[in-house]
Amino acid sequence: MPKDVITTRAKDYNQWYLDIVREADMAEVAEIVRGCIVVKANGWAIWEMMQRELDDRIKETGHSNVQFPLLIPKSFIMREAEHVEGFAPEVAEVTRAGGEELAEPYVIRPTSETIIGHFYSRWIRSYRDLPLLYNQWCNVMRWEMRTRPFLRTAEFWWQEGHTAHATEADAEAETLKILHEVYADFAEQVMAVPVIRGLKTEKEKFPGALRSYCIEAMMQDGRALQSGTSHNLGQNFARAFDITYTDQGNTVQHCWTTSWGISTRLIGALIMTHSDDEGLVLPPRLAPTQVVVVPIYKNDAERGRVMEAVARITAEWKGRLRFKVDDRDNLTPGFKFNEWELKGVPVRIEVGPKDVEKGSVAIARRDVPGREGKSFVPQAGLTERIGALLDEIQASLFQRALAFREERSAFVSTYDELKQQIERGFAWAYWDGSDEDEKRIQDETRATIRCIPLEQPGTPGACVYTGRETTRQVVFARAY
Amino acid sequence: MPKDVITTRAKDYNQWYLDIVREADMAEVAEIVRGCIVVKANGWAIWEMMQRELDDRIKETGHSNVQFPLLIPKSFIMREAEHVEGFAPEVAEVTRAGGEELAEPYVIRPTSETIIGHFYSRWIRSYRDLPLLYNQWCNVMRWEMRTRPFLRTAEFWWQEGHTAHATEADAEAETLKILHEVYADFAEQVMAVPVIRGLKTEKEKFPGALRSYCIEAMMQDGRALQSGTSHNLGQNFARAFDITYTDQGNTVQHCWTTSWGISTRLIGALIMTHSDDEGLVLPPRLAPTQVVVVPIYKNDAERGRVMEAVARITAEWKGRLRFKVDDRDNLTPGFKFNEWELKGVPVRIEVGPKDVEKGSVAIARRDVPGREGKSFVPQAGLTERIGALLDEIQASLFQRALAFREERSAFVSTYDELKQQIERGFAWAYWDGSDEDEKRIQDETRATIRCIPLEQPGTPGACVYTGRETTRQVVFARAY
Repeated sequence: MPKDVITTRAKDYNQWYLDIVREADMAEVAEIVRGCIVVKANGWAIWEMMQRELDDRIKETGHSNVQFPLLIPKSFIMREAEHVEGFAPEVAEVTRAGGEELAEPYVIRPTSETIIGHFYSRWIRSYRDLPLLYNQWCNVMRWEMRTRPFLRTAEFWWQEGHTAHATEADAEAETLKILHEVYADFAEQVMAVPVIRGLKTEKEKFPGALRSYCIEAMMQDGRALQSGTSHNLGQNFARAFDITYTDQGNTVQHCWTTSWGISTRLIGALIMTHSDDEGLVLPPRLAPTQVVVVPIYKNDAERGRVMEAVARITAEWKGRLRFKVDDRDNLTPGFKFNEWELKGVPVRIEVGPKDVEKGSVAIARRDVPGREGKSFVPQAGLTERIGALLDEIQASLFQRALAFREERSAFVSTYDELKQQIERGFAWAYWDGSDEDEKRIQDETRATIRCIPLEQPGTPGACVYTGRETTRQVVFARAY
Repeated sequence: MPKDVITTRAKDYNQWYLDIVREADMAEVAEIVRGCIVVKANGWAIWEMMQRELDDRIKETGHSNVQFPLLIPKSFIMREAEHVEGFAPEVAEVTRAGGEELAEPYVIRPTSETIIGHFYSRWIRSYRDLPLLYNQWCNVMRWEMRTRPFLRTAEFWWQEGHTAHATEADAEAETLKILHEVYADFAEQVMAVPVIRGLKTEKEKFPGALRSYCIEAMMQDGRALQSGTSHNLGQNFARAFDITYTDQGNTVQHCWTTSWGISTRLIGALIMTHSDDEGLVLPPRLAPTQVVVVPIYKNDAERGRVMEAVARITAEWKGRLRFKVDDRDNLTPGFKFNEWELKGVPVRIEVGPKDVEKGSVAIARRDVPGREGKSFVPQAGLTERIGALLDEIQASLFQRALAFREERSAFVSTYDELKQQIERGFAWAYWDGSDEDEKRIQDETRATIRCIPLEQPGTPGACVYTGRETTRQVVFARAY
């Protein structure tokens, strides 16, 4: 594997991303199925790690997993006015099955509010049935025109939570609980990706939602990536699908529903937040392999002694570290170092004949390339040392990403400043414009309002576009 | 919840099954999507337990998980002669997407040999790339005419393993390793379902396979349920999709491939092996909740003392037992007992004021109904006692199912005996008939050859149908 299989970010950021996706065994474009990808072993293993962590949080907050059908009667998609506008143009339709034309086509779910709404209307009778707190892990399909591995694909994999509540306050509390306790916590603690928690503008919200909340992250090219959304759907879907309950006073009321999702596009966010020109960089909490051990030897006698030491060193790692011993015989250590660097393994341990003599090993950090990240440490106490190092790497990746975001963020007070700042990163600005103003800025700059952050300064200022005084700040950026 | 929500097996076995599926919160028929189901919370939780156990075994035997597209170009299905015959009549086709008619339709995968074959032909170049050992967890779709929750549904969920090898011997070893170390081990050790490991006849094998192996279980009505299949595909798909490698002698060879799958129909097998007229019975290793604690009290003072004892008792259970404390206030203990019995929780603990005084609890086994399964034990040492009891229940369920199968199995030496025996269960018989004989027996008796068991007596006998001498025995049964 030659060193230069990865294009540098400076040379071509887009190609750098595609090179990592390919060389780190993450995914491959499935040209024969338009817009779809094959998720390869390293990519799917990372998604499994993400699923496990998210699923724990989803269950801890009181939700159960269920599974609704892949297919939705086409007429369902048409029932909620904004929803049909948002999704009807990009659905894939099943019109024939079992050798016959279908009377009514089905669509492959682009998202499941409609079919789940249908069932909730049957399952919910009384206030005693509420809240209903379900989630599903599944594939969905949206016939996108411009696709990119993980970031935007026709088929993708996600979780979609769907809940029903008696009151607006309950639905709002659920929407925010997911945003904070599940999504932002997962992004920051597990992915080591700092996020801004905010509200979407009317123009950017989910089709059919009352309010959409999101977490927004900054990629290494300064662009934003929406990393999770949590929607208070109000009573819109409850009205469209007749989801009602009888309250304690025996009155029939419409429910308040929510939906929220995080998808495989997060794998793209992970790559673009931490990786470097040598390949993938993974935070230890998501690394399918946290530690790789590369034995170094020149002959069978050395091999015997080295492998014996490796067996001894790794004996106590089982169940404590996710590790691999790379004992392939026909490859040089240098080749192996490269391959594991490409695949993003956080810590590499090298054991050679001299290490065996001295009772030491060499330890190299993936996140600090070259000599600076390499040290020689005693074999005694190695397990604890690696555990502490993994924690340090996890924290360091987060801090580095946070520092990068801060460095690339600035407050802007004029439209000209805004235009300049979005070339670099996030532009914070006072905002009191209309939907049309927002649209005009997007046409002129390709930047959108990513969100209205939940944390606001509270002091008034002049809108960056209209000059009108407001206390509301927003974040503008170009986005994936 | 009235006691008689479950029809007895004696009255109507089929209705008994449907009642359990409904009342134990397992699944619901999704009438608006033909042949599909919604898998509800208890059903999906069991599937997640199954997935975890199977996935561990699949990874321990050296496989990685990946994910291939949901859609397959329709022409792919047509490439392997037997495969097209088997699957083309029951595919669902996507003919429109993004508002346009597609030039070539896609089918929703009924199984993925064809699309995976396409990618393997690109990925495999040399003997060094072999074996290729991948698996995927996904949904698949087959437009079945007669459906039944879990047992036969248009959409179902499964894992499908797909491997490529250099030689026939390697492919055969893989096929058998999956059958024994993954599928039979999982069925017997985890599901507590005894299985017969065998080879399918030519008539019953997978469309496109060289040889299909299976595990077959007996349900409580004496019918067989195929619980997992492992196929040696020979070079059939390698030829159809041009999967070749260059061997050590620099000659280009076709690969030998395998595929193997286990699906959500196993949930049906689980229900029909262990459950009784009171509802679901779950083996402890697959029970999402292994122990439920029901506090019993008449007033607030009692409630305080009882709940304090419950908190103390369960404090050390976290991470050791999967348990729930049913502290719902508005329901009677009797109602709760019924509900958890319906849902199959293996062990119930009751704690009342007298138990608090005596330092005891009542403990009830789900698999032994009534007084016989209930005892009073000290609170001291309860955790270990429950652990041991769960092991005992797991073993006892297996033994009970095994004894049932043995009691309902018999060797038959004439066609008349065969016809009688398949009314009761499995008929073991010498077999040297043709495909046509097999078909004729099926038409006349609705029984099929479930498999040619891998364990054979080795002594010769007369074929039950033709009278010709043979050493081969087979198992006949009616099947789900």
